[in-house]
Formats: sequence, C-alpha cells, structure tokens
Amino acid sequence: MHLQSLEGIPLIQPGDDLGSIILISLQDTQLTLENGDILVVAQKIVSKAENRLVNLSQVTPTEKACQLAARTGKDARLVELILQESREILRVDHGLIIVEHQLGFVCANAGIDHSNVRGSWGEAQDWYLLLPENPDRSAQKLRDYFFQACGVKIGVLIIDSHGRAWRNGVVGTTIGLAGLPGVVDLRGKLDIYGYELRSTMVAAADELASAASLLMGQADERTPVVHVRGFPYALREAGLQELIRDKNRDLFR
Amino acid sequence: MHLQSLEGIPLIQPGDDLGSIILISLQDTQLTLENGDILVVAQKIVSKAENRLVNLSQVTPTEKACQLAARTGKDARLVELILQESREILRVDHGLIIVEHQLGFVCANAGIDHSNVRGSWGEAQDWYLLLPENPDRSAQKLRDYFFQACGVKIGVLIIDSHGRAWRNGVVGTTIGLAGLPGVVDLRGKLDIYGYELRSTMVAAADELASAASLLMGQADERTPVVHVRGFPYALREAGLQELIRDKNRDLFR
Repeated sequence: MHLQSLEGIPLIQPGDDLGSIILISLQDTQLTLENGDILVVAQKIVSKAENRLVNLSQVTPTEKACQLAARTGKDARLVELILQESREILRVDHGLIIVEHQLGFVCANAGIDHSNVRGSWGEAQDWYLLLPENPDRSAQKLRDYFFQACGVKIGVLIIDSHGRAWRNGVVGTTIGLAGLPGVVDLRGKLDIYGYELRSTMVAAADELASAASLLMGQADERTPVVHVRGFPYALREAGLQELIRDKNRDLFR
Repeated sequence: MHLQSLEGIPLIQPGDDLGSIILISLQDTQLTLENGDILVVAQKIVSKAENRLVNLSQVTPTEKACQLAARTGKDARLVELILQESREILRVDHGLIIVEHQLGFVCANAGIDHSNVRGSWGEAQDWYLLLPENPDRSAQKLRDYFFQACGVKIGVLIIDSHGRAWRNGVVGTTIGLAGLPGVVDLRGKLDIYGYELRSTMVAAADELASAASLLMGQADERTPVVHVRGFPYALREAGLQELIRDKNRDLFR
C-alpha cells in the first residue's frame, strides 16, 4: 500500500472547486488516478470550500451556552456554536466539551476549529470553521467529479483528527466517505486452524484515515490530500453511519 | 509512505527466534532494511514465540471469576485468566469484559486470544494466548537484533486489534514499541497564519498501527509483519506509557 501527499494544494477559499484543484495537484504530483485508488481529504479544506466559516460576532449565546462557558473557560459564543452543532453533551471539563455531533459521532468541541482559518472580513481570531454539513455527500461529490473528469471509480474519505477515550493523542478519523467500506465484516471467515473467528469487524476506513493523517501534517505543512494505492479491501458504496456505534450498545456513553 | 507485508512468515511456535524468521522473510520479499524503516509486528506471533500459551485445564477459577462468568456467559477459567492479566474491570456485558490490562491500556478480555492458537498438547479449543509479558521489551529485542544483524537503526511496533468507545469495528493499536515516537507533540508550532496551535498531540504510533493493520488480514492470511518506509516523524527512544492516558485525566473511565 502506497500513500503519497499531493503537492501544491493552495489555501482553499469559500466557493473553490475542490475537485479541479485536486486534479491539478495530482498532475503536479505526476499521479494518474486508477480504478480502486482512494483520495483522503482533510475536513478543513472541505469545510472551507463549502464556506462553513462563522464569525463569532454573528453569534448570540443562549443562557445554557453562558453557563457552559463559565464551566469550561470558553467564549460563550463559541460554546453556542458547539451546542448548535451537537445532539448531546457527553462530558465537560476545562476547555473541553465532548459531544455527540449532529452527524452522529462523538468528538471534542463539535469539531469546530480555529487554527488556519481567516474569513473575508472581521478580526481573524473571531473566525471559526464548522464541519461540512454532510461529509458523505461531500465525499460522493468528489467521487463523482473524478469519475466524470477521469473515468475512474475511486473511493473518497474525509477525515478529521479525533481524541479517544483511554489513550493520549489524536488520530485521523473518518467523518465522511464514499466508495469504500467503513467497516469490513470478517465474521464467519475461518482462522488458519479452521475455527470460526468470533468478532472481527474491522474499521477499515478509520484505519486508512489514521494512515493518511500521518502524511497530512498539522501546522504549516499544506498537505491536506493524500493519494492511496493498494487499499486491500474491495471498494463498495458506504456511508459514515456504519462506523457509528449505536448509542444503546455503547458502554462508554 | 510505503507499507508492504512480508511474505512467507511460517506459523510461529514457542521458542522460535522471531528476528531471524523476519530476516529470512525480508530477503524472500526482496527488501533490504534501511535506517529509519519500521517493522510492525502482530502481537500474536510475539506472544507465540514467547510461549504465552495457556491451557484452560491448568486454570482454577476463583469465586469472583465464577460470578463474572455467569454474568458474561464466558468459561470461568477464561475469566480467571482475564482477571489475572488485569488491574481493573471497567465494564461488563454479555461475552465482554473491558479491563485495564496490567500493561496499562484499556482493552476487551485482556487481549486474550483464542483464534489461530494450537498448543503442543491438549484439546485445541482449550488453548488461549496471553499478551507478551513486556511488549516494549519484545520490540526493543527485535530492534537490537536488526541493529546487530544488519547494522540499521529501525523502529519496531507491536500491535493488536482494539475496539473503541463510540465507534464500530476494531483498529490496529500499539501495545509495545521501540525506536519510534508513541506521541508526537506539535504544540507550540504555528499554523499557516501564525496562530499557535492549541492542542495537537498526535498519536503517531497508533496511526501507524492502524495503517499496518490494514495489510495484516485477520484470518487465513499469514501476514503478521509489515515493513514501513517513509514514516514522516523522526525516530527516537520511546515506550508504550506515553500513549496511555492518565486515569485521573480520563473522562471515560
């Protein structure tokens, strides 16, 4: 399996056509897409292209947001945004609100991001970036673009960096996908002695999200797209929901 | 970054010299190790080589194990092994005991494995495989072997498949490492607008564990070792503990 970050992706602006920008970058990187390839795309550039920027000066916090702001030390207007993006609050600590996002997954601060964001007006430090409204749809749109532009069937994965229970550090994690499996079900396959494997559902998309995240850098490196060749599982239609554990079957909610 | 699973690794037996077996397999795969390469090794073959096999006929369950067995539907002798390998029980459900392992991480059933295990005596279905006693030490031993045998400084990562809170499917996860960073601290690096990144500790070893896990297969495929070239972070001395979140700073215990 070979992973390569694309060169020369410019700073993305609201309204940019990500598909054609990535296509140019593929050419600059001297890569030709083939059937079965996967493009892994950082959430941040998808959100920017889809103009998910919000300026805090446009946000009026509710009383609930003000109370949570006092508990967490966060700006009440930012907390208001977090609440609007979330279904449920799971845990609260200083500087941290762990939520179930409207999109279904659990993450910190509703995935709302400050770094590397600058809007077209207002103070730079007041701009925040929400997650894409429907990352599966964003992934499918890119997949359709490359089928039309290059005649290839690829998978597209949109990822963010998520913290985890029990372990330090963030890892690249799927927030949207199209054309590759989220989870691969190996149950019923036999082990090498002929015993049935008991419980092997592999979160293949998340494994790939983590792999690609290694090459994206986090700070001044501009490598928000990674090309993958040699993903070992068969591509198929899929969506984020297969990666989300049902709330009633989750022992850590 | 290029990942390649090694060919021709035989079924590992207790007492086998993993280093020399992997070296032969590298030659079969026509790979020559270079400084900075990483070998990712499945826990299962390390445990087997270190003879961490236990036959249930040798285990006498305590009363606590019998009670937990009744609650979970598991064999009381297996529950006894799980208790012996663990510091603390976090959650219990049908067929499932989530523990803090003696090694420090949280995992299901203390990482004790049944599939693909056969001992030298007794009924095959009674054999279980414990995790290596000290996976960091096992990784360091392999690292030392390749320095002596090939004169190269590589990293070695020992991984298992772990479930997660909130999301479906298992992902490759670090249980021991030598010579590569567990967590990379990007705090203080500036973003592209000159703002300081707030909280970017990247669990680089776990991201690589997930990447390599994709190529290991789970069932009849015998690819328990993956060679990695192009890992983007500087290699250094490290141990598992940097990946383990302090219990008092964990909101999901």
